[in-house]
Amino acid sequence: MKIRLYNAKILTMEDTRITEGEVWTDGDKIAYVGEKCEAMPQFDREIDVRQDLLMPSFKNCHTHSAMTFLRSYADDLPLQDWLFKKVFPQEAKLNGDRVAAFAKVALLEYLTSGITACFDMYFYPEYFAKVCTDFGFRGVLCGAVTQGDDLALLEERYIKLNSYSKMVTYKLGMHSEYLCPIEMIRGVSELAHKYKAPVFMHNSETEKEVRECRERYSLSPTQLFDREGVFDYGGGGFHCVWFDDEDMRIFKERGLWAVTNPASNLKLASGIAPLQKMLERGVGISIGTDGAASNNCLDMFREMYLAAALQKVKTGDASACAADEVLKMATVNGAKTLGLDDCDTLTVGKQADIIRIDMHQPNMQPQHDIVKNIVYSGSKQNVKMTMCAGKVLYENGDFSVGESAEDIYAAAESETRALLAE
Amino acid sequence: MKIRLYNAKILTMEDTRITEGEVWTDGDKIAYVGEKCEAMPQFDREIDVRQDLLMPSFKNCHTHSAMTFLRSYADDLPLQDWLFKKVFPQEAKLNGDRVAAFAKVALLEYLTSGITACFDMYFYPEYFAKVCTDFGFRGVLCGAVTQGDDLALLEERYIKLNSYSKMVTYKLGMHSEYLCPIEMIRGVSELAHKYKAPVFMHNSETEKEVRECRERYSLSPTQLFDREGVFDYGGGGFHCVWFDDEDMRIFKERGLWAVTNPASNLKLASGIAPLQKMLERGVGISIGTDGAASNNCLDMFREMYLAAALQKVKTGDASACAADEVLKMATVNGAKTLGLDDCDTLTVGKQADIIRIDMHQPNMQPQHDIVKNIVYSGSKQNVKMTMCAGKVLYENGDFSVGESAEDIYAAAESETRALLAE
Repeated sequence: MKIRLYNAKILTMEDTRITEGEVWTDGDKIAYVGEKCEAMPQFDREIDVRQDLLMPSFKNCHTHSAMTFLRSYADDLPLQDWLFKKVFPQEAKLNGDRVAAFAKVALLEYLTSGITACFDMYFYPEYFAKVCTDFGFRGVLCGAVTQGDDLALLEERYIKLNSYSKMVTYKLGMHSEYLCPIEMIRGVSELAHKYKAPVFMHNSETEKEVRECRERYSLSPTQLFDREGVFDYGGGGFHCVWFDDEDMRIFKERGLWAVTNPASNLKLASGIAPLQKMLERGVGISIGTDGAASNNCLDMFREMYLAAALQKVKTGDASACAADEVLKMATVNGAKTLGLDDCDTLTVGKQADIIRIDMHQPNMQPQHDIVKNIVYSGSKQNVKMTMCAGKVLYENGDFSVGESAEDIYAAAESETRALLAE
Repeated sequence: MKIRLYNAKILTMEDTRITEGEVWTDGDKIAYVGEKCEAMPQFDREIDVRQDLLMPSFKNCHTHSAMTFLRSYADDLPLQDWLFKKVFPQEAKLNGDRVAAFAKVALLEYLTSGITACFDMYFYPEYFAKVCTDFGFRGVLCGAVTQGDDLALLEERYIKLNSYSKMVTYKLGMHSEYLCPIEMIRGVSELAHKYKAPVFMHNSETEKEVRECRERYSLSPTQLFDREGVFDYGGGGFHCVWFDDEDMRIFKERGLWAVTNPASNLKLASGIAPLQKMLERGVGISIGTDGAASNNCLDMFREMYLAAALQKVKTGDASACAADEVLKMATVNGAKTLGLDDCDTLTVGKQADIIRIDMHQPNMQPQHDIVKNIVYSGSKQNVKMTMCAGKVLYENGDFSVGESAEDIYAAAESETRALLAE
């Protein structure tokens, strides 16, 4: 399908300048970006964008999509009660079909927030891979081995899910230092070397986690992973709240991605990641929502706002962590983190992962600086269209994912009730 | 006009239980709240709410509406540069018509966020009063005298704008301790006594403000105002970030309102107000967005989320500042702060200031706890209708305020460009 999006403001994210013109797609790719053109091919659809903004979609670099079933189920509780009394007992009742039902709600929510790819770490990844493929959404799955798991299964999934569909890839990963004994960390490192592959995990989310790791190894989690060769082919960490200078040095030197989850870190009282320091040292940062049980919403606008605003209060300097840096984290850096190198910018030949930002809303007036408007004032309400691989999956509040949203909501609600009643 | 809203979930905010049924309006008032009824009057309009939620609208208790013209104009700058190099020089070029043009953008944005009343402190209040009256929006204006101003003008406006229209009231107020010499503070106190009226002002927004006040008076701003009798008939303060035990004691004892502005305090690196401590001590809290130059968006969902989530990270306790408390701040407490005692709950005889929250969105699934869903997951995208005084001002993305949104945007953009070019 060839689509023409014309009469547009365009933010390619090659840089943060705004131009005027049009964008064409051809199949899953971007075929043209530029001024209005005299010679035009035949299009299957032409959309007058009415001076709205076209830009690359957002990439959600850390989430547990199916955790929507626990949204608003266990808030306002201390962290240990939340995890051990509320989350773990319910997660034990999951199965593949339930994960699929709950993940669909998350995928719809991602689309309302202009997100076309997510880095998902959860149970039953085969089911999640199918949902992403069916929807036409990019699922990048992350291994999550913990104590007692079989590394052979991680390897099997790595092979199987990396050739499952063009919408799905799979990355090596473990849950975290605190849930993985040293033999498992070494085993993951061996797989990283065998496949020359990056590795990701929860890293330094809480102060307690880092303190206990230091008690065990006299090293931070980052330093331990580095010593064990886990990062020899890249990768990164989720959260990265309690990072010290040496952790940042390792991340910078190895080109690792620090995936920040500011809303979840706030809500679970984990802390505020030192993003400004990371920026100053050249550490690559991307952004994730974390799961709906901890956030609770899956909204890149909230995350972008927090990524910027929390640094200002953390450093006491209102100039910290500027908007253009944050927009880069949410788009270009996100794509790179996920290994989706052809989904990063609005450039001819790249994948057509494009969103339309409604500029005809009061929160976008006046238009002194559209990048700042998006980061500081933007909201889901501004997402008029979300396109992934050249297909419009969300437009004017309606979804095109092969199933009705109401059916998805009803299934998630009834599966949630059944699960909780068990 | 008599409107029937049926097939609804209802949250009256008399408490936080959700019931099912319908709400009727008659003119500007609520005529019925309850189950489906056999005997029904004639209605001018009947709306099937499709199991969406009806609840009281939000009240924005501190803002400078016309500051939309500086949205995204001066972000990512240190506070002093922001204020002295960017904000003050541009504000000097304002006039009444410009304030009206810029305030209209803010009012539209409030409506998209379910807000039907705001406590506005800015220049040219007569022009703002007219805009509110024309739109059918509740404007509560706040005096903002500073050094060099004439207290006679404050009194004149107090009398004139309190009988201007049924949509407008005016409260005594001064900018802040730091911009008011002691004679002016005493003069405002005299007016408070003369009219038995509450007084509001910026209070303890930054650490510097409180430190310098202590240097001048050996008292915090709150203690100084209290000593001078400013609070003898109630009132409150905007921001209240750097409050100590004695400040909280005074606020509690005198029934003053602490209006929190969490997004602005973050973005300007002012700090995080001690809301959890205030709650524990019984201090009344309501919520404001502050102006668009500092926030930058005028969105009660962002403020509610931050009011809750920042307390969790501030106290290190994820159970701090629970969702039901925050929803009360944004609705019932807001109405009381503004003196809009008949706009607080969905109750027969009260003003019909009602919003419809779209429950057919992924961020509202599943529905374990709708109050938590609103506070932690809600967004402007969930506001399907905003009704003020029985009139639908915003519905399904369209405004009914007597002028087209596009005309308002265009006027604000051209006035902004003209002002900046001067």
